[in-house]
Amino acid sequence: MKAQQQRVTIGGGGPVGTLMAIFLAKKGIEVDLYEKRGDPRLEKQAEGRSINLALSLRGLSALKEAGIEAQLLSYAIPMKGRLVHTINDAPPTHFIPYSLNQNNVIYSIRRFELNKLILEQAAAYPNINFHFNEECLGIDLKAHTIQFKNKKNHRIHTEPFSILFDSEGLWSPIRSSLLNIPYTNFSQQYIEFDYKELTIPALNLNGGYAIEKNAFHLWPRTTHLMIALPNPDGSFTCTLFLPHKGNHSFDSFKNVAAASDFLQREFPDALALSKQMPEQLVKHPTGRLATVTITPWSFGERILLIGDAAHGIVPFYGQGLNCGFEDCSFLNHCISQYPGDWKQIFATYENERRKNTEAIAQLSMDNFLELRKTAADPIFKLKRELETLLEQKYPGEFLSKYSMVTFSQIPYEEALKKGRRQDRLLMDACSKVQSLSELNLDKIAQSLRST
Amino acid sequence: MKAQQQRVTIGGGGPVGTLMAIFLAKKGIEVDLYEKRGDPRLEKQAEGRSINLALSLRGLSALKEAGIEAQLLSYAIPMKGRLVHTINDAPPTHFIPYSLNQNNVIYSIRRFELNKLILEQAAAYPNINFHFNEECLGIDLKAHTIQFKNKKNHRIHTEPFSILFDSEGLWSPIRSSLLNIPYTNFSQQYIEFDYKELTIPALNLNGGYAIEKNAFHLWPRTTHLMIALPNPDGSFTCTLFLPHKGNHSFDSFKNVAAASDFLQREFPDALALSKQMPEQLVKHPTGRLATVTITPWSFGERILLIGDAAHGIVPFYGQGLNCGFEDCSFLNHCISQYPGDWKQIFATYENERRKNTEAIAQLSMDNFLELRKTAADPIFKLKRELETLLEQKYPGEFLSKYSMVTFSQIPYEEALKKGRRQDRLLMDACSKVQSLSELNLDKIAQSLRST
Repeated sequence: MKAQQQRVTIGGGGPVGTLMAIFLAKKGIEVDLYEKRGDPRLEKQAEGRSINLALSLRGLSALKEAGIEAQLLSYAIPMKGRLVHTINDAPPTHFIPYSLNQNNVIYSIRRFELNKLILEQAAAYPNINFHFNEECLGIDLKAHTIQFKNKKNHRIHTEPFSILFDSEGLWSPIRSSLLNIPYTNFSQQYIEFDYKELTIPALNLNGGYAIEKNAFHLWPRTTHLMIALPNPDGSFTCTLFLPHKGNHSFDSFKNVAAASDFLQREFPDALALSKQMPEQLVKHPTGRLATVTITPWSFGERILLIGDAAHGIVPFYGQGLNCGFEDCSFLNHCISQYPGDWKQIFATYENERRKNTEAIAQLSMDNFLELRKTAADPIFKLKRELETLLEQKYPGEFLSKYSMVTFSQIPYEEALKKGRRQDRLLMDACSKVQSLSELNLDKIAQSLRST
Repeated sequence: MKAQQQRVTIGGGGPVGTLMAIFLAKKGIEVDLYEKRGDPRLEKQAEGRSINLALSLRGLSALKEAGIEAQLLSYAIPMKGRLVHTINDAPPTHFIPYSLNQNNVIYSIRRFELNKLILEQAAAYPNINFHFNEECLGIDLKAHTIQFKNKKNHRIHTEPFSILFDSEGLWSPIRSSLLNIPYTNFSQQYIEFDYKELTIPALNLNGGYAIEKNAFHLWPRTTHLMIALPNPDGSFTCTLFLPHKGNHSFDSFKNVAAASDFLQREFPDALALSKQMPEQLVKHPTGRLATVTITPWSFGERILLIGDAAHGIVPFYGQGLNCGFEDCSFLNHCISQYPGDWKQIFATYENERRKNTEAIAQLSMDNFLELRKTAADPIFKLKRELETLLEQKYPGEFLSKYSMVTFSQIPYEEALKKGRRQDRLLMDACSKVQSLSELNLDKIAQSLRST
């Protein structure tokens, strides 16, 4: 089989690149995996860069296919719904379950932890060759070479490649090298919000959760947003999203007192649980968010972009990683279907995945507004309740947009189209009543069927 | 005056960069002008790369402001309207004047010739330092340096800059260096058409025009398009636009016979006048077309993008160069208004020019469809006649969209908005009649006033 004689180079040893290495290794393909950072098994994560991920069905299915789901889930914490923190409402918090089906949960896991765990699994394959501390400087498509700078000894070296997968993420340097190739369409568009990681610590050194453990915590405000995801040690990783211009940008907090004032006004309950939060707000690095698209995804029948390098999306649906893992799974199937025929593999992959990744990019932008509106808009709250009720009353027939994206493997493109139609219909129904008891569920279900 | 102490580096010695150098030199500013190609005063132009430009009012006004309009116009040929070449219609050609006002003409000039002429004018300023054969490799924004490779001696050298204008055009390497700066939004989108330069030669060695001299020749076809602009030597520079995929792409003509067949079928009258056209169609290089946008246009209060480097547009309105010259003129005014205050200059410039260049980008895309439809659609022909009539009957009151863009200095943004409203109204009126005599012009004029 031609595929087995192949050697594949992977640029970028994040979760997506490493999972892809495992899929290839299982097929007997020799893999060279290059990663800019050091070996996560030997290093500690940098403070303030500890994004948490929410694994859901699409990501979990890919991990299962690779045979490593169980090993990873043991470090993850299930979240059963959104716990919304308001300022002036009574009660000050309310819980919105994702689903009445107990299995429909999402899993919080630290990015660094996840990366390390997948890497430990990948290390079991002798045909995966790890190259850490290797920063990619760019590629030469004609010569089929990739240039690296070793971050330990500062040596610049050039390596040949036969097949190259680019999983270097949102700001991929490999992708930068491809922009001058004729007919390469490209777009990078920042959104108006940046983010910072903050922490709510465990209750004490032995752990213990200061707020509900099994929930995705949400502090929706009209012009900004904070979320918090649980960690195994009892702490929560918070992510605060602020516009990068104006009075409430991260740059506007010149000192800890100003940061503290802001947190006291906007997130008093969170501040009460975290003495370090104001200082973190001043000192932690600012992360930036953008939507990135590129066409095509493959070049010269040798290079393929996967994950964020191919389709950078904003994080507001928690689907970036899940989508990247789904990429790996689908690519794995393409490689099985057309062994060694990379041209056909790349074409089949792009034909199916492009439309779906464009849909999740759109869904993710839409959901930012939805997350911020969650608390403020009573119609939206009613609609979420109605969705949960409909899913319960018409099982297997109705799935909310959120459920299609998060708890199903319905292609994103279909979830987007169907979800938007449903949203319009349900928002319309909810805008005319004060409570769900005024609605005729059977009639709504019938309308949904005919959309 | 602070500005007079300044030194400005210009990357890209095309018409826009060179005109800007003249504006700066007139203010006593020391200018370093770097250009990848050799000195056009010493070199011949490469065959098959001889794009013709159509200078119109905006471009001419800027040249006048720089005091070099008359010198350039003596090499340009006025074009009074579109001469449309059809295949099966009788008569085989028809002329659509741009305007009944004799002054409203556009001027055909070879790009190479124009560049050389402006350069000759710029050479009169001792404070413009020319650096030819210097290919820009990239910039270092922090160190304020720009790196060049001398194409004669292959030496790579780094030069400091105080203020840098990027006029490197559609594929600017300076701009490429800026894409990794946070919050830089960027998009490059190729259109589905490529182009090639072809030639209709002069009737004989003493000149003489094979087709009407003072016209913009147009061969509109539904799926492709050819245009021809006159040259002083009696020849015409034709530009053929074909989709880059499918049966009629440039790649599809594997030999001269196949090229000849295609030309015979689609442009028989042009082929009859040019023996060399089939071979040119096979051998000439293929040009590519894209719309490019970047935000912001200025970086670190030191670098400013102008012309195609800031806003790459497609050529279908003949406004790329005119818009670039208008950039220079407006920038010149900003520099006069805020001498030495580059931050304010850059902000004022971008605030005014961005919306207008976005509008001409849009207008240029729209006009591609319009050019191809000109012959095929009787309603469109009627509408063009109606516009000319309205301009004549209501002088100073009505200007067609084409006239606003080409024969006025109404900001592009306004021309786009007003032009689209007018188009809808006039196309609607023309779709209901067979000839203009059926229309009530006063009523139409009244409707136009109230839009």
